[in-house]
Amino acid sequence: MSDGGSRIDIGSGEAMHALATELFPICRSITGEGVRETLRRLSTHIPMELVEIPTGTTVFDWTVPREWTIRDAYIKNAIGERIVDFRRSNLHVMSYSTPIHARLSRAELRPHLFSNEAQPESIPYRTSYYQENWGFCLPHEQLVSFEDGTYEVCIDSTLADGSLTYGECFLPGDQSDEVLVSCHVCHPSLANDNLSGISVATALAHALHTRQRRYSYRFLFIPGTIGAIAWLATNREKTTRIKHGLVLTCVGDPGRFHYKKSRRGNADIDRAVTHVLRQQTPAGEVLDFSPYGYDERQYCSPGFNLPVGCLMRSVWGQFPEYHSSADNLTLITPEALAGSLSVCEQVVEILEHNCTLTSTNPYCEPALGKRGLYRATGGSHVGDRNMARLWVLNFSDGQHDLLDIAERSALPFSVIHAAAAELEAHGLLRR
Amino acid sequence: MSDGGSRIDIGSGEAMHALATELFPICRSITGEGVRETLRRLSTHIPMELVEIPTGTTVFDWTVPREWTIRDAYIKNAIGERIVDFRRSNLHVMSYSTPIHARLSRAELRPHLFSNEAQPESIPYRTSYYQENWGFCLPHEQLVSFEDGTYEVCIDSTLADGSLTYGECFLPGDQSDEVLVSCHVCHPSLANDNLSGISVATALAHALHTRQRRYSYRFLFIPGTIGAIAWLATNREKTTRIKHGLVLTCVGDPGRFHYKKSRRGNADIDRAVTHVLRQQTPAGEVLDFSPYGYDERQYCSPGFNLPVGCLMRSVWGQFPEYHSSADNLTLITPEALAGSLSVCEQVVEILEHNCTLTSTNPYCEPALGKRGLYRATGGSHVGDRNMARLWVLNFSDGQHDLLDIAERSALPFSVIHAAAAELEAHGLLRR
Amino acid sequence: MSDGGSRIDIGSGEAMHALATELFPICRSITGEGVRETLRRLSTHIPMELVEIPTGTTVFDWTVPREWTIRDAYIKNAIGERIVDFRRSNLHVMSYSTPIHARLSRAELRPHLFSNEAQPESIPYRTSYYQENWGFCLPHEQLVSFEDGTYEVCIDSTLADGSLTYGECFLPGDQSDEVLVSCHVCHPSLANDNLSGISVATALAHALHTRQRRYSYRFLFIPGTIGAIAWLATNREKTTRIKHGLVLTCVGDPGRFHYKKSRRGNADIDRAVTHVLRQQTPAGEVLDFSPYGYDERQYCSPGFNLPVGCLMRSVWGQFPEYHSSADNLTLITPEALAGSLSVCEQVVEILEHNCTLTSTNPYCEPALGKRGLYRATGGSHVGDRNMARLWVLNFSDGQHDLLDIAERSALPFSVIHAAAAELEAHGLLRR
Repeated sequence: MSDGGSRIDIGSGEAMHALATELFPICRSITGEGVRETLRRLSTHIPMELVEIPTGTTVFDWTVPREWTIRDAYIKNAIGERIVDFRRSNLHVMSYSTPIHARLSRAELRPHLFSNEAQPESIPYRTSYYQENWGFCLPHEQLVSFEDGTYEVCIDSTLADGSLTYGECFLPGDQSDEVLVSCHVCHPSLANDNLSGISVATALAHALHTRQRRYSYRFLFIPGTIGAIAWLATNREKTTRIKHGLVLTCVGDPGRFHYKKSRRGNADIDRAVTHVLRQQTPAGEVLDFSPYGYDERQYCSPGFNLPVGCLMRSVWGQFPEYHSSADNLTLITPEALAGSLSVCEQVVEILEHNCTLTSTNPYCEPALGKRGLYRATGGSHVGDRNMARLWVLNFSDGQHDLLDIAERSALPFSVIHAAAAELEAHGLLRR
Repeated sequence: MSDGGSRIDIGSGEAMHALATELFPICRSITGEGVRETLRRLSTHIPMELVEIPTGTTVFDWTVPREWTIRDAYIKNAIGERIVDFRRSNLHVMSYSTPIHARLSRAELRPHLFSNEAQPESIPYRTSYYQENWGFCLPHEQLVSFEDGTYEVCIDSTLADGSLTYGECFLPGDQSDEVLVSCHVCHPSLANDNLSGISVATALAHALHTRQRRYSYRFLFIPGTIGAIAWLATNREKTTRIKHGLVLTCVGDPGRFHYKKSRRGNADIDRAVTHVLRQQTPAGEVLDFSPYGYDERQYCSPGFNLPVGCLMRSVWGQFPEYHSSADNLTLITPEALAGSLSVCEQVVEILEHNCTLTSTNPYCEPALGKRGLYRATGGSHVGDRNMARLWVLNFSDGQHDLLDIAERSALPFSVIHAAAAELEAHGLLRR
Repeated sequence: MSDGGSRIDIGSGEAMHALATELFPICRSITGEGVRETLRRLSTHIPMELVEIPTGTTVFDWTVPREWTIRDAYIKNAIGERIVDFRRSNLHVMSYSTPIHARLSRAELRPHLFSNEAQPESIPYRTSYYQENWGFCLPHEQLVSFEDGTYEVCIDSTLADGSLTYGECFLPGDQSDEVLVSCHVCHPSLANDNLSGISVATALAHALHTRQRRYSYRFLFIPGTIGAIAWLATNREKTTRIKHGLVLTCVGDPGRFHYKKSRRGNADIDRAVTHVLRQQTPAGEVLDFSPYGYDERQYCSPGFNLPVGCLMRSVWGQFPEYHSSADNLTLITPEALAGSLSVCEQVVEILEHNCTLTSTNPYCEPALGKRGLYRATGGSHVGDRNMARLWVLNFSDGQHDLLDIAERSALPFSVIHAAAAELEAHGLLRR
């Protein structure tokens, strides 16, 4: 990690967008140099360990696949023009395509061409990680224009033993209990899914790096599915320390927030994100857990059942640009990235400060006035600060944490937390 | 039981309507030849035992009443015309009327005439089982036209020691645990209430008769209230085997479905019927238990508290033809009867196949692709079958049954069950 | 207590309004002669003990303050006219004002003048119990008309050792378990807040005084906050007997009813008041507990957590006349007071009669017909009385009290209770 002098602070929306822009051209997949290069660049912002897991390693029911290297790919027409060209967009080649160099008729080529009729101008994103195949992705309007004839197809790729790479940024805290933040780094030139998640996670780690931390924080930058499975398989003993977790994806577009709850449905992380999203404009929407999506699928598999939810703005699969060349740098905005980072930081504030306190004066209200904690003139309305004190005192019975009290009172957690700190300083609350 | 060659398969809507048509003219009551004749005709379709309980038998707080025989009944006007005639509609005589043959003034006759001002053209259905009385039922518009004068009234009936008759069709299954299906057979010429229930129950028993059954099935064709009480009193030891139950009534009209939940409110039968009705068009409505209605009143009395609900289309008492001569064969349709049978069969499928399974790979998702259970090309949307597999795997933790998973996933039980069967065949689930 | 011959029965709306009218001119505060005089007048209607707690007594975190006596107060203008005059409205002087007699410039006077810009024609109600200060309250439109110059200000008051006074009316019942009814008596000439509560509480005590009582009833007429704290501190051993409780405030205006639930949220008192308010026209609204309001703040402090809610019509602080001279005798009506008393009496009926019974015939319905408890002619609809019997019999399983049954059946408690009494008389229920 080196904090280069001229770098913009990664905490701003502009800096996060610039980071996404820097990473956008790299051709990532679930293994290979693209991931390594991406992680190396992130490590200029935050402390980052790159971990390699060799091809063939058994991780639960799965095996770490061979490493994929892609150098070039194209389809040439009869007159030798590159009509589909990897150099123009790395989405043109199906990820994990096996090598080929041949002349094929249109009919022979057709089964290896992938398009999306619903988005005819965009190149779709397709993969074939676990079944050997090769393919090209192209706009549907181009595919239908292919004429009969012979095409030269070339995919200059290698599938060979190597390793799967992930990045880990661990920030120890006062406690060994951990907060997990996870994002996938296996998508090629797609901006919202998931350079947005990578940028926000990096900025969050950067912000947490220099502050006092109650919890330890573990940031995982991993290939989707196989990366999460590999991490869980090789770090089982660490999973019991994970008390809260978030998967970040699609957090760069200007859509309203969505949060998919953990499988538990009422974990502290679910309550905390719900509280924060309720205060956004427009208010975010909270969705029940389902076993499809991103790596919460693995963290929330029944054997682990970790308290990990997924924060999004627009929901993956539900915006038209999803998994296509239209998910580019114009889809994500500095403002949206900054808003997403802010939500993450507010969630962290809750996790860091939430606790269950006990009133030292449980019988009747304590006399706040003599401590300067109540308006002197009676008869008129009380304000939020006064109300927050009353809420905290009444519900600090050892049964309700501060987040409960914020929810019941419909006051922001920050106001409740400030009241609690003040009351504790006056000896009216004890831990 | 004899399967006559030319009979239409009782499983079709037309055949159920034909059965109702065949039974319609018979004058049923809570005892007597009408019930026996009805049960004899049902026994041509399904195995059926006729059980007789003698007059005077104590059944809990009740006593089996005398048997009622009705041969003829009429009111003649001054010139000897039968102006009210049992031969035209058996609803004209109040059920359990004591015999009378007398000449009465209009004023003397009036207290024995029953009409319904709200449905002035229809003959209402009235009974007096437990208080000796006699009466005639007639359209209100006819009643108000009665002129002063003398009338000859005749009810040629007998109330004498005999027995109460009910029919029982028991289909043993792999388990001694039972599903109870109950319908009342005590109503005279009323089609929806309850020849529809009788027809659907008969067709359901017929369909179940020849299939492999996990559960044993007990179909009761019984006189309302006293019949259910008599059965419960004389079969107390069997009641603990009843794991699920349905009362069928008013299932022949074209109205939307209604299901009244068991007293427990969250029994498996309540969850199963709710699941099936949610998928109907229009969606069926689920009602809370109340202690009035049909024989669920007895099955759900607090001492038994059996998991028995009541399936209806239009709710008894809430359609204008209810308990009147307008509840005739034109009110019920083959399509509605067939739809009701289909709902019953879908409920049976859930009861037969619902179970709680355990994933053999609880840590992370198993690798479905290598088993051919996942789409080979990634990046595009997954379909219902793929989603069903993920739902079943994630929630097969020993705590959720397949019906839970169907409800959570908003997928039909049949899709979830098929996925579970496939996964079990691949060794990914165990019982 | 003397029942003067010519007095109107305190139970009528007119009599309650007359009582409020009688008490209106008295200048009450949290201590002093105004409270004593008020309590003395109430004691002509109901048995009442006046309790004095000396200045300086420690009550939990608080200390009983000095007693305040106010004789006169005014502001005179340059030509000696009383432009603000305590004799015209006791709201003009801030409660607990320290004595002063001085000539002040407008600038010196200004910090001691209180008005409410939002209600410019009304005198606001202000207090300074726990911080020594003096002040005048006046309409905002008058305040802005004050010209530069010198004013003679006089507050002829005394703050001296004395005592805090409260009134207690205890009506012993068959059980030592208690129902608490509490209202504050510390407000000067304000009608809805809280002469209405005082009047209704007095009328309720009067009505309960002469009837058979299952519960003991304790009525507290106390200064707000400090009075409740003083009572709780000096009667801790009695608090465990309080099984239900109501704070009465703002029950004289014609607004719809509101009930703020106890901190427990599901106490019997919460269920009982909710049941009664659901049947009002318009239906009353039920609010969750919050730790601000009237003396439920103290009764529901976490150490006590008593089952005490707060009955209101319009909610304090939410009607424009609140805490101002516009809360006068025209705001409260005999009809509204009578309606509030009726609600209290219906709640008392529920508390007195609610119980959990057990059916003596839990297996099937008992034969109600042979006991004359069921309509003789079957086939037509049953009425509420029949339905109530069925509900009570089915749910009298030792798990549901009569209020549960009323709620489930959507029948009024009175109907359910009458059915239960009838069934018990027939030996069909036992306690």
